[in-house]
Amino acid sequence: MVKHMDVPEETMQRMLAYLRELDCLWNEGKEKFSSQSLAKALHMNPAQIRKDFSYFGEFGTRGVGYATKQLIQELRAILNLDRTWRLALIGVGNIGSALLRNPELKRQGFEIVLAFDKDPRRIGNKIGPLTVEDVVNVKRRIREEKVQLAIIATPVECAQETADKLIQADIKGFLCFAPCHLSIPDEIRIVPIDIPMALGKLVYHMEV
Amino acid sequence: MVKHMDVPEETMQRMLAYLRELDCLWNEGKEKFSSQSLAKALHMNPAQIRKDFSYFGEFGTRGVGYATKQLIQELRAILNLDRTWRLALIGVGNIGSALLRNPELKRQGFEIVLAFDKDPRRIGNKIGPLTVEDVVNVKRRIREEKVQLAIIATPVECAQETADKLIQADIKGFLCFAPCHLSIPDEIRIVPIDIPMALGKLVYHMEV
Repeated sequence: MVKHMDVPEETMQRMLAYLRELDCLWNEGKEKFSSQSLAKALHMNPAQIRKDFSYFGEFGTRGVGYATKQLIQELRAILNLDRTWRLALIGVGNIGSALLRNPELKRQGFEIVLAFDKDPRRIGNKIGPLTVEDVVNVKRRIREEKVQLAIIATPVECAQETADKLIQADIKGFLCFAPCHLSIPDEIRIVPIDIPMALGKLVYHMEV
Repeated sequence: MVKHMDVPEETMQRMLAYLRELDCLWNEGKEKFSSQSLAKALHMNPAQIRKDFSYFGEFGTRGVGYATKQLIQELRAILNLDRTWRLALIGVGNIGSALLRNPELKRQGFEIVLAFDKDPRRIGNKIGPLTVEDVVNVKRRIREEKVQLAIIATPVECAQETADKLIQADIKGFLCFAPCHLSIPDEIRIVPIDIPMALGKLVYHMEV
């Protein structure tokens, strides 16, 4: 198998989209599919899909198409999604609590195993399966639990400070719900989930 | 002012990022800034920023830079963010409830004015400022309240049906938290917020 570093970022992102769509096809009972049908569902060109797949070797059978379940397993392995990732959550306000209570994340291979907050009224509370811990212990606890990923769901004004602490704790990547830009080293991966900005994308082309 | 349709989508998305960063600069007390300092904060090329701005006319003063507050106001006007947008929310599970309780959205110009669910145990509940309504009335209520935007926070298996109903109610765009692909007409704008996929982006390059 090729090293992922040699595969374009855009291809990896599309592989995630293919996996999501294949999961849907499988849930609808479709045991086989063609690159044409996948392309149609995703409004894409089938040649693009075949080219993306070709980075990782041969998957389908010419004229027969792809076996859905088998390809799901292969994509999960390629995407490092054939295991459970352990996450730390920082900030158990509205969004953070919603994530802790969401069983879908674990089903997708992401388990929140540590939850932190700085608010004394929240520390010690049980939310879903976890007890909220004091954020002052974040570095020690993340190392003890060998957690590599984190979710920042703090208010904007604590987000940079939180990111700095997580990086000191050797976190390799994080999702950030705080709608702000963070300064982090290049080798750390950050994926922002900025809900106000997403809403902004809905309206700039609206007629007003 | 140029019509937004003539401006590349990527420029409009970057304008949103500039606005977010300027809001941060303003909150930090910075009344003036240069395209260099903005570019540095966003890890971008200053020429790109000046080019993006140039679609909308002259903003700054050569050698002096930009006045933060004034540019924030101009960007908000360009991005249609100089008003309050009224939204309908469908699905008041964990994520939907978190959005209803989040005061930040309204501060950013997005007010959820209708909330729906299909679960009888949720209909009639008061969450934040709203009472959850029965989703069977979604079309009538959206038209009555003249709402143009929606947020889908239903489980995956209801997301397409919900999108279809919203389109019948003349919704022009929506955010979708359900991690699945939806079939919608080209003229309707959809912005997905797919948390499992965002987490997936964190791990495909991880060494395992």
